[in-house]
Amino acid sequence: MSLITRCKENPLIRPADILPSAEGYQVLGSFNPAATEFEGEIILLLRVAENCIREEGYVSVPYYHIDGPESHPAILRLRENDPEMELKDTRGVLYRGVDYLSTMSHLRLARSRDGIHFKVDDKPFIYPTRESEAFGVEDARITKIKDRYWINYTGVSKDGFCTMLAVTDDFVHVEKKGIIFPPMNKDVALFNEPCGGYYYCLHRPNNQGFGKSSIWIGRSPDLLYWGDHKCLLRPDDSVWEREKIGGGAPPYKTEEGWLTIYHSKGENQRYTLNTLLLDLEHPDKIIAKGSTPLLEPEEIYETDGFFGNVVFTNGMVVREEEGEQVAWIYYGASDDTACLFKANISDLIAHARG
Amino acid sequence: MSLITRCKENPLIRPADILPSAEGYQVLGSFNPAATEFEGEIILLLRVAENCIREEGYVSVPYYHIDGPESHPAILRLRENDPEMELKDTRGVLYRGVDYLSTMSHLRLARSRDGIHFKVDDKPFIYPTRESEAFGVEDARITKIKDRYWINYTGVSKDGFCTMLAVTDDFVHVEKKGIIFPPMNKDVALFNEPCGGYYYCLHRPNNQGFGKSSIWIGRSPDLLYWGDHKCLLRPDDSVWEREKIGGGAPPYKTEEGWLTIYHSKGENQRYTLNTLLLDLEHPDKIIAKGSTPLLEPEEIYETDGFFGNVVFTNGMVVREEEGEQVAWIYYGASDDTACLFKANISDLIAHARG
Repeated sequence: MSLITRCKENPLIRPADILPSAEGYQVLGSFNPAATEFEGEIILLLRVAENCIREEGYVSVPYYHIDGPESHPAILRLRENDPEMELKDTRGVLYRGVDYLSTMSHLRLARSRDGIHFKVDDKPFIYPTRESEAFGVEDARITKIKDRYWINYTGVSKDGFCTMLAVTDDFVHVEKKGIIFPPMNKDVALFNEPCGGYYYCLHRPNNQGFGKSSIWIGRSPDLLYWGDHKCLLRPDDSVWEREKIGGGAPPYKTEEGWLTIYHSKGENQRYTLNTLLLDLEHPDKIIAKGSTPLLEPEEIYETDGFFGNVVFTNGMVVREEEGEQVAWIYYGASDDTACLFKANISDLIAHARG
Repeated sequence: MSLITRCKENPLIRPADILPSAEGYQVLGSFNPAATEFEGEIILLLRVAENCIREEGYVSVPYYHIDGPESHPAILRLRENDPEMELKDTRGVLYRGVDYLSTMSHLRLARSRDGIHFKVDDKPFIYPTRESEAFGVEDARITKIKDRYWINYTGVSKDGFCTMLAVTDDFVHVEKKGIIFPPMNKDVALFNEPCGGYYYCLHRPNNQGFGKSSIWIGRSPDLLYWGDHKCLLRPDDSVWEREKIGGGAPPYKTEEGWLTIYHSKGENQRYTLNTLLLDLEHPDKIIAKGSTPLLEPEEIYETDGFFGNVVFTNGMVVREEEGEQVAWIYYGASDDTACLFKANISDLIAHARG
């Protein structure tokens, strides 16, 4: 087996497999899945991006009517020549002093026995119900800690993007816990057990105007309150990561260290994935990182799509196969579809150690 | 007495009153003081900005050699025509792949019996000793909580600006506690006692590219780990605050609510100060805010200086005078000097309720 093996069935989930969340909406992307195992199934929590079906003579944009548990999707439908509407490039409109985006995301569950063929829920699992989520919820991670499934995701609003925390025990009910990282911060990946009495997470502050966006690490006594932050890894000067980097799925504990797969944005807005190995007892210390990408966009579904040449992972499960620990690494391709590749844990560690 | 009374002795502290922190340095500004009372004195913790004395034919920039407790100020001195040097506008140089700023700040103590005539320490109290402080430490706040003096300040580095925490018991020794808010976040103001079992603070994330920088509120069980963040107050559309706003000194507990003075940046990069009153038990609820500024740059030391038309406060003490609670509001004028105005607490509350 080579270092990585893409699933022959890729893409596993496409926009056409998803029911829109409201009448008049259409699905543009079903990508960047969080992943975990639950009751014998692999569960993905997909980012589903939607816009409004085009109608001649009108501009229609999706929005959420935010009202706590009563929040619901809606459509702002305006005549193309409405003098009160101001088009803001292709990403949205300004109407009566309020911004609307042309595309909004929510989070949707998909379940599978074999990890390859998924049944996607008809309705959203996590959707905007708060001011800080008014422009959508994106890019979840699921971390199982002591039989509870902690979900963090990006909340987008007029105040920027921030990281929200939620928790579920059954993937039916979900309890939102609020903002754990204020703007501008995303790509949070929780460690699934404490080190030295503290939970840790990777996170990714936006330091626009100073350096390049880098991977930071923070810690917490309880998952809710975070501090003692440090910059862990900055992008190197390679063609693969000279623009920015960010954390991926929750780190996986191995005998040799915490293993995680992070994403890099390099030349020509091309994204790749790479390995990172952190010290078991002091996860703010780097043991090794891969010197070349683990996965680059090569297949047609990775190079072409809504946003081509993007591979991004935020979901990984590890299964025993023929005596080997095998990572099933779910990833988003081209901000469009959900895909899978596999690699042996031992090979991933060897890749990091380069 | 009018609503506010500027101290006749303003500016109280000028750059010329400060000894440079290293040979070859010169002091450009002594401003934005934190303030508290300690052993019968008013203590200010000033931001002192320095650059290098100009020398014909050379470009010299200050920097800190960062090495924990052994950290010390140094000078990078280059011939003007050094081909390895790249001038980056007036703010710094790039040399051998490393950025240097032309100006650096540290924090310096000043002490006074009468709150007006200050003796400034000869040496810095808090200076860069960590990677996250390599471009300087700025704009402290001091909050007395249970007989300890908690100091938060901005650490500037190539990774952006973030909020550092430290603590002192005697204003001789100081213990750094690390980063409590990762980039880009500043203007943190701690509440001096818990509400409902949690400490609160105001903070100011930078949400560049989305909305305008606003005042947020977060809470903590222990001052070290922070969460449950909410956007508290966004800039209004007035000429005074349409650019951005940020918190000032630690909020002061009154019978009618937590009173704080915040700063606004409005038209023409002009800064003003305003009042804000928060609910006593639920400080994430606003009771009132002033409808017009409390203090505008009017005096010559406020309109002219290193950066004219800037007034900024991060230090306030409250003293009993003739049966009235009087706020002594220390402030930076024109990013240049430290000044003082006074106002009755009852008048400040009335201003907020406006």
